[in-house]
Amino acid sequence: MKIKDLRIHSIAIADPPLRSSYGLHAPYALRTIIELESDDGIIGINETYGGEAPSTALHAIKKKVIGADPFRLTGLINPEMKSKRSGHDRSQTYLVPGENPLDETSRTYAAIEVACLDLIGKSIGVPVCDLIGGRVRDKVPFSAYPFYKHAGGGGEGNDQREDEYGEALSPETLVRQVKKMIDQYGFGSIKFKAGVLDPELEIETVKQMYKEFGPSVPLRMDPNSAWTVETSVKVGVALVKELSGGGYLEDPTASIPGMGAVRKKLLELGIDVPLATNVAVTSFGDIPSAVNHDAVQIILCDHHYWGGMRQVQHLAKLAETFNIGLSMHSNSHLGISLMAMAHVAAATPHLTYACDTHYPWQSAIDEVVEGGRIKIEDGCVTIPEKPGLGVTLDYDQLARGKERYTKLSYRKRDDEAEMRKHVDPTWKRILPRW
Amino acid sequence: MKIKDLRIHSIAIADPPLRSSYGLHAPYALRTIIELESDDGIIGINETYGGEAPSTALHAIKKKVIGADPFRLTGLINPEMKSKRSGHDRSQTYLVPGENPLDETSRTYAAIEVACLDLIGKSIGVPVCDLIGGRVRDKVPFSAYPFYKHAGGGGEGNDQREDEYGEALSPETLVRQVKKMIDQYGFGSIKFKAGVLDPELEIETVKQMYKEFGPSVPLRMDPNSAWTVETSVKVGVALVKELSGGGYLEDPTASIPGMGAVRKKLLELGIDVPLATNVAVTSFGDIPSAVNHDAVQIILCDHHYWGGMRQVQHLAKLAETFNIGLSMHSNSHLGISLMAMAHVAAATPHLTYACDTHYPWQSAIDEVVEGGRIKIEDGCVTIPEKPGLGVTLDYDQLARGKERYTKLSYRKRDDEAEMRKHVDPTWKRILPRW
Repeated sequence: MKIKDLRIHSIAIADPPLRSSYGLHAPYALRTIIELESDDGIIGINETYGGEAPSTALHAIKKKVIGADPFRLTGLINPEMKSKRSGHDRSQTYLVPGENPLDETSRTYAAIEVACLDLIGKSIGVPVCDLIGGRVRDKVPFSAYPFYKHAGGGGEGNDQREDEYGEALSPETLVRQVKKMIDQYGFGSIKFKAGVLDPELEIETVKQMYKEFGPSVPLRMDPNSAWTVETSVKVGVALVKELSGGGYLEDPTASIPGMGAVRKKLLELGIDVPLATNVAVTSFGDIPSAVNHDAVQIILCDHHYWGGMRQVQHLAKLAETFNIGLSMHSNSHLGISLMAMAHVAAATPHLTYACDTHYPWQSAIDEVVEGGRIKIEDGCVTIPEKPGLGVTLDYDQLARGKERYTKLSYRKRDDEAEMRKHVDPTWKRILPRW
Repeated sequence: MKIKDLRIHSIAIADPPLRSSYGLHAPYALRTIIELESDDGIIGINETYGGEAPSTALHAIKKKVIGADPFRLTGLINPEMKSKRSGHDRSQTYLVPGENPLDETSRTYAAIEVACLDLIGKSIGVPVCDLIGGRVRDKVPFSAYPFYKHAGGGGEGNDQREDEYGEALSPETLVRQVKKMIDQYGFGSIKFKAGVLDPELEIETVKQMYKEFGPSVPLRMDPNSAWTVETSVKVGVALVKELSGGGYLEDPTASIPGMGAVRKKLLELGIDVPLATNVAVTSFGDIPSAVNHDAVQIILCDHHYWGGMRQVQHLAKLAETFNIGLSMHSNSHLGISLMAMAHVAAATPHLTYACDTHYPWQSAIDEVVEGGRIKIEDGCVTIPEKPGLGVTLDYDQLARGKERYTKLSYRKRDDEAEMRKHVDPTWKRILPRW
């Protein structure tokens, strides 16, 4: 089997005006869909970050891909990836995921690896999770992912999506948002995107969530480095009950030493709220320092930028070895990414927390997988008895996504610019803000 | 595809009277050959430790294996393996590899995993290295592995093998042994098994080897924990030139703190001879303490007891992350193990040293792979363009190995007993001896 074509499709999908410490989500999120076609006409697919840079990087590797054996391609391109993967300590504190040039090679490699695995799986009739070591679970748990948000369901002009969840900028509206999400998807845990309002209001939001859903539904809070060490400690103290018992405090402050300082002070106060990260630690190069500082008790993996499914499995074993928990990070994504996340999670024994997903924020109108949106039931995605990732492309839907992309004026994610455009013309991301 | 049978064959293979700090190799080494047969009649094979305990453990897992999908079996048995894999710090300082009850589950899991991969590869026509991430090299380098030895080529009575290398209990005869090995196999590095004679004599042996082959042929010295911290430092000082430049000092002394103390003292003396291990660190559970003590600069992996090929790949990434080199450990083995070692090494980017192998010490008379012994040329095993591990069983040869096994009185490796029987009736393993 040889690869005869690599097709790269830049698409745009509607995205609601979600808030985070990075700023505001634009009306459309950008994604790249890739197809690897074999000489016998089987097509492997994958989804990754969107916009110009990821597409350009994929085009640049195209000549290595065409003609390669999909079983050998990942080995073939590995040395090249490694030689460029020199950036250690490439924290994305100041960069949204997908826009960090230092992990571009890992992202490109991952995009190709997963498409190869889908192609292989579809060629031999085997699900991806069983190609990479064998599933240890059939149902992969995901978390509800509430955000502070403005009114609107995403999209612009005549292309707007229904605002399923409405505006949510207060504790009460956030609780309502979570309730709706749990009713619809059955999530058994909550990942709350903080770092947007005054910490006192966010503490109140978590308290109200806990009152409504706790303690049986673990709670996580993620302000994306918005706080000082002192504020982080204050929040940890205020929410010790709410964030314990399966919850965590994710990236309260920036940098590995900062996270280590928060941990140290919390432990001195007898508070064992674990700290999670997908900002301070985003590459293997960050880990020795993180271990040294006892900076993180949970790492959020993400095959999209950690270098693919097998690198996530390496990361999981490394985390297990150092008694670090493993969760999974998410960005705005469609069903291909959701299935890839589910497959790698299914084949990763040391996955100790439910995975994040933005999937509830996307609309069926934008889905590119045949048959429409992937089902999340009882908070879980079930690995289907289908080969590869278990999904195929709806080419009409893909064409619509590409058309949306061509009409857009932007080619990368810039949450700060969106904030200035829609909320506050003087807004800047300040770290720490509180 | 389902597995319809698991066949477990205990065999014995002639082994020369090699010496180490553990004692003396018996006239026969014990191995287990397994066959996994699928419902469409394809047979996956593997080779692992021999004797009663490994065979019993494999028989115990048989009912989980029969009926399973080979793509899913490793995931299926993973949780069970994990639950038993509780032993941390399960150093094999006092136990020969394969006889450590604490890694029995890892060994059993590994034996099944590799047989599954061979079965899968043979079913779909793909080499094992390309099933587990894709080869990053086609030629896998191995080291010459000289031993102090008594006269004899292995075997007993009428079943003795030719003594190709003769007695070697002095520096000069060791050099002659290495020369013959390099002439025959083209090895580009030397792993010298020490811990047998007085350290002064062993230092002289290394110096003579270096004089003959260095500096273009890196030298490693492995006394298997025979020395005190002080002796280890003394040897490091004496052999700084000989063991640098791609060589290392392997397990000079016992325990992680002991190794850390040697490292610290050598560095204080400005000597950067790296320390390697396959005794102090033999499981993931040992690694945090090893990192903490800066006890090892190179880990010797071995899929046979680290839990299989994928665990070795995890270990390699972990080692790369913590700036630790990776080499590969060996025990007396036949061609199936050699090919499995070559395949995992081919698909492991961070393999920074040539692999060990005892293969030159075994005889064609004992080989169980069809077509006879695997070729080592220019010190390398080349991954053949064949599916799975690239080797199949010679059933006549297998039957002879089984017959040898049934005639033997022992069912486990006991190098200490062999020393008492053949060399010194009062011999005991004493650590440290010097």
